[in-house]
Amino acid sequence: MSSIKEIVYTARVEFGDCDPAGIVWFPNFFRWIDAASRHFFAECGVPRWEETAQTLGVIGTPLVDTHTRFVKAASYGDTLQIAVRITEWRDKSFVQTYRVTRGEDLILECEEVRIFGAKREGGGIRAVPIPPDIRALCA
Amino acid sequence: MSSIKEIVYTARVEFGDCDPAGIVWFPNFFRWIDAASRHFFAECGVPRWEETAQTLGVIGTPLVDTHTRFVKAASYGDTLQIAVRITEWRDKSFVQTYRVTRGEDLILECEEVRIFGAKREGGGIRAVPIPPDIRALCA
Amino acid sequence: MSSIKEIVYTARVEFGDCDPAGIVWFPNFFRWIDAASRHFFAECGVPRWEETAQTLGVIGTPLVDTHTRFVKAASYGDTLQIAVRITEWRDKSFVQTYRVTRGEDLILECEEVRIFGAKREGGGIRAVPIPPDIRALCA
Amino acid sequence: MSSIKEIVYTARVEFGDCDPAGIVWFPNFFRWIDAASRHFFAECGVPRWEETAQTLGVIGTPLVDTHTRFVKAASYGDTLQIAVRITEWRDKSFVQTYRVTRGEDLILECEEVRIFGAKREGGGIRAVPIPPDIRALCA
Repeated sequence: MSSIKEIVYTARVEFGDCDPAGIVWFPNFFRWIDAASRHFFAECGVPRWEETAQTLGVIGTPLVDTHTRFVKAASYGDTLQIAVRITEWRDKSFVQTYRVTRGEDLILECEEVRIFGAKREGGGIRAVPIPPDIRALCA
Repeated sequence: MSSIKEIVYTARVEFGDCDPAGIVWFPNFFRWIDAASRHFFAECGVPRWEETAQTLGVIGTPLVDTHTRFVKAASYGDTLQIAVRITEWRDKSFVQTYRVTRGEDLILECEEVRIFGAKREGGGIRAVPIPPDIRALCA
Repeated sequence: MSSIKEIVYTARVEFGDCDPAGIVWFPNFFRWIDAASRHFFAECGVPRWEETAQTLGVIGTPLVDTHTRFVKAASYGDTLQIAVRITEWRDKSFVQTYRVTRGEDLILECEEVRIFGAKREGGGIRAVPIPPDIRALCA
Repeated sequence: MSSIKEIVYTARVEFGDCDPAGIVWFPNFFRWIDAASRHFFAECGVPRWEETAQTLGVIGTPLVDTHTRFVKAASYGDTLQIAVRITEWRDKSFVQTYRVTRGEDLILECEEVRIFGAKREGGGIRAVPIPPDIRALCA
């Protein structure tokens, strides 16, 4: 029997995160989701990307695909809980999912595909095979 | 025979749009996509949301769903072309798509579902039926 | 003998807050400073601006002047403390100051002039006299 | 007789740049100011910071001090002109000024002190003497 690790990241919605309609301007949700993604790795004991750039050549986890479903609006003063999991490990990518809630309310659900990225000769980023050490830390 | 209206929005990538890996931090792509969405309506002759709030009760086009596939990284100094279309009109929502390129390079593709939003009594946002006047302008 | 109220706001620096040089991209400091400004009023018991717009005509506290001195860089993983005070009340404006630290390190100091803003007929914002109720809450 | 070089950067204000009061949320002005700062150097022929990091050790122009006076509000749909100059060269810093206008309207004025920054051993950033080649390009 196994369970999937889940880490919760908390975000406060501020006045400046909202648009003239008075609700969160949606790119800000992706700001928090990206912070929650790295928070997941940090909580699992994965070092800063500056350090993994030296040791593994990994400069971060660039996004390849996101599918996000927005259910309820949020506004300033709200506190959001973002529950993060890695639900699938592939050869050179992984699936990371997010469930954003405000108390009992579901705000959004997001499913991403990310890679571990390395600098490509001549510019740009390439995917490297999932580093076993990082995967072990996140299990 | 008919054709779908396509409007192109141009964005410059700035230094501050990039992260410590030197590439665009992905929430900024959604910043430009949202700007391109409204630019589409503006180019079609749809008034500012402040005005439609008075005339139609429509305060904007909140996002319900986004599916985005990131193909190539971009960095500061790049100029991005964002080609926008509305590919489907439903009763209370519509599908808006984006193709982001840098010259010949495909950077990302995005498909969204949005609604025309009105203030709900007691807070929050609700979808209204597609306003015929807006649809006519965008055809 | 009197003392000035000081409220501390905490901000985490995230990966996406940093630029290709690996340090906080400075507009993000102003994002946190603005959040700390409203947090000050919220902690003093001042209602949301939506509510004061109804009761007092006050839609927020627009910035009139900022003088900010940056002392040390910060990077992702850092936790910042932002100590906020109102150091002067004028007829139609007030001075709000911020001291941002990371443990013992001073990161920046900021002194602002803000107003209580109301919608102006025909568009734009105008300053209103300091509302006595708000000033009393903040003393 | 001499004249100071002035470069103009143009920014469009988008819906998402505005806050619930319907006006530009002020940290976004600093986003545009920072873009205008680098645009000045780019127009003068200074290479990307990635390249100067290799040739001169210069990773960018971190901000040391800003004094900004906000005169009029702006909102989405506005086009802003940002006129940039370098008004003073010191040993290890320089003064860069910005005048932001919308047609005839003055929106804000900003005066900054910046340095040419290099990575410091053990982390952080230090100021280097003004590189003569860069100064010559900007004269």
